[in-house]
Amino acid sequence: MTFNKIAVIGLGAIGYGLAANLARNGLPVVGADANPSAAARFADEFGKATGSSREAASGADAVILVVVNAAQCESVLFGDAGVLASTAADALIISCVTMDPAETRSIGARIEATGRAFLDAPTSGGPARAAEGALTLLASGREDAMKRAEPIFDAIASKVYGLGAEVGVGSAFKMINQLLAGVHIAAACEAIAFAKKLGLDLSRVYEVITASAGNSWMFENRVPHILDNDYAPKSAVAIFTKDLGIVSDMARAASFPTPLAASALQMFLMTAASGMAREDDASVARLYAKIAGLELHPRETEADVGNSATREGALR
Amino acid sequence: MTFNKIAVIGLGAIGYGLAANLARNGLPVVGADANPSAAARFADEFGKATGSSREAASGADAVILVVVNAAQCESVLFGDAGVLASTAADALIISCVTMDPAETRSIGARIEATGRAFLDAPTSGGPARAAEGALTLLASGREDAMKRAEPIFDAIASKVYGLGAEVGVGSAFKMINQLLAGVHIAAACEAIAFAKKLGLDLSRVYEVITASAGNSWMFENRVPHILDNDYAPKSAVAIFTKDLGIVSDMARAASFPTPLAASALQMFLMTAASGMAREDDASVARLYAKIAGLELHPRETEADVGNSATREGALR
Repeated sequence: MTFNKIAVIGLGAIGYGLAANLARNGLPVVGADANPSAAARFADEFGKATGSSREAASGADAVILVVVNAAQCESVLFGDAGVLASTAADALIISCVTMDPAETRSIGARIEATGRAFLDAPTSGGPARAAEGALTLLASGREDAMKRAEPIFDAIASKVYGLGAEVGVGSAFKMINQLLAGVHIAAACEAIAFAKKLGLDLSRVYEVITASAGNSWMFENRVPHILDNDYAPKSAVAIFTKDLGIVSDMARAASFPTPLAASALQMFLMTAASGMAREDDASVARLYAKIAGLELHPRETEADVGNSATREGALR
Repeated sequence: MTFNKIAVIGLGAIGYGLAANLARNGLPVVGADANPSAAARFADEFGKATGSSREAASGADAVILVVVNAAQCESVLFGDAGVLASTAADALIISCVTMDPAETRSIGARIEATGRAFLDAPTSGGPARAAEGALTLLASGREDAMKRAEPIFDAIASKVYGLGAEVGVGSAFKMINQLLAGVHIAAACEAIAFAKKLGLDLSRVYEVITASAGNSWMFENRVPHILDNDYAPKSAVAIFTKDLGIVSDMARAASFPTPLAASALQMFLMTAASGMAREDDASVARLYAKIAGLELHPRETEADVGNSATREGALR
């Protein structure tokens, strides 16, 4: 059960931390990212990285895909770079990509047709947990492939849900989580902006709601970004226009109505259309504020800048 | 700071438990409910109750209103029964009613104009916490009235948020909580029904989501009703057609858009329109299932009825 070469394709927010923890656990990882600065940073810190996914995957007995979507996944594996064909004949391919389960099944079938193994293993937990080697994996795929992946999963995850032998099930669980997460972010932003419109003290609203039945994981996690007026992207609006877009496609394909997810998607799209696609997803609150002409934050005087105690005081 | 007579108007799910805990703490409570069986049960268990709110309130130095909405509140206080006029001249009136803050302010002003004191104190926690004397109160009103209410609050609540001197603020906090709670119930039902459509094991979905970023207090609390196929009303659909209706009225009055709350309201209305208004609010999942022709639960054979182990096994 040892690996000679593990390629991690995609050194973004999740991929970088994931690859770093493989290296820290002594596994023979090679990182690949088309962005030269990500590859260079990984090479500096952990030894091996390249701008070419083919070079990283060449002869690898495991490849972990941490790219943005199904299209990138397909283009990396089956496109001109010929990444899949360059791996070992019995390589294990693990997708950590959030995508439509139908796409996952299609990609998995094409991989397995070459004699290689495939696991559908989207992540939960975000960049912070990836950096700690403490991701949650929503994994499905054949039992022998799961068994082979254990040393990799041990290095990158604190919790692995084994969701059965069928590829696509991991992706489906991830999409159900994203449906809820997206609706809850939009609802948190709607509620906070409405509370401001009603003249309520937002710090007290946070205190009361997080102790009440209206709480959600996302309310608790994202509202502090609004209170701190900090929209540096911990997770960007564009992630949810993508993920709720996938939910919308899946639901339409299945003839299944998802009015809550559809409303949330529209709010993320309006926020993106307002120029905030790359900013933190709590920016949906700024969109409501912009529409309604609200100031979510007291304007800072020059003396306040960098003085969060003063600012926090003013919010109470 | 002692009371000679405390009237509790409304012995429903919250009012009964609240009144019971006043009695248990030795406070001189008289319960009132137009439903003779609720009044009779309270009289049996705790000594004093009547079908007439005027009789309960006559000469009382405190009145606690636990009726369904603003209209009932107004009709009790200012209607033909003349309840307010029958109380002590310096009586303290406490509203635990969930209503539009504008209505609360109007009712409060009319009460205070008679020289009596008023507190706006909606509850959170539901019937179970009311029965334990462990409600959360979202209270606002003048400081001297808050001080007077302390022996009452001590008997019925484990947590009292003092939200300032302005009547209506407690109601506004409650409505923000209800906005979120209603959206989260509808989202939980949408996600669970969609998961069923995707063929996922709903018990695993519950396990994974409650440990993930898609979790909410309502998802965690309500989805077990769906898994257990138990729609006996712990909290009815009609509560949320009412409360999201108030949110909708408030938002329209303030020219503020609430698309998430509006979508959730429509789902509760469809569920009520389907004949489930008086059933548990998790019935929204049954509405999605009905629309999409899904079986959320394996049909029970006669042998299964009352055998929850078998039923649970079948869900896994």
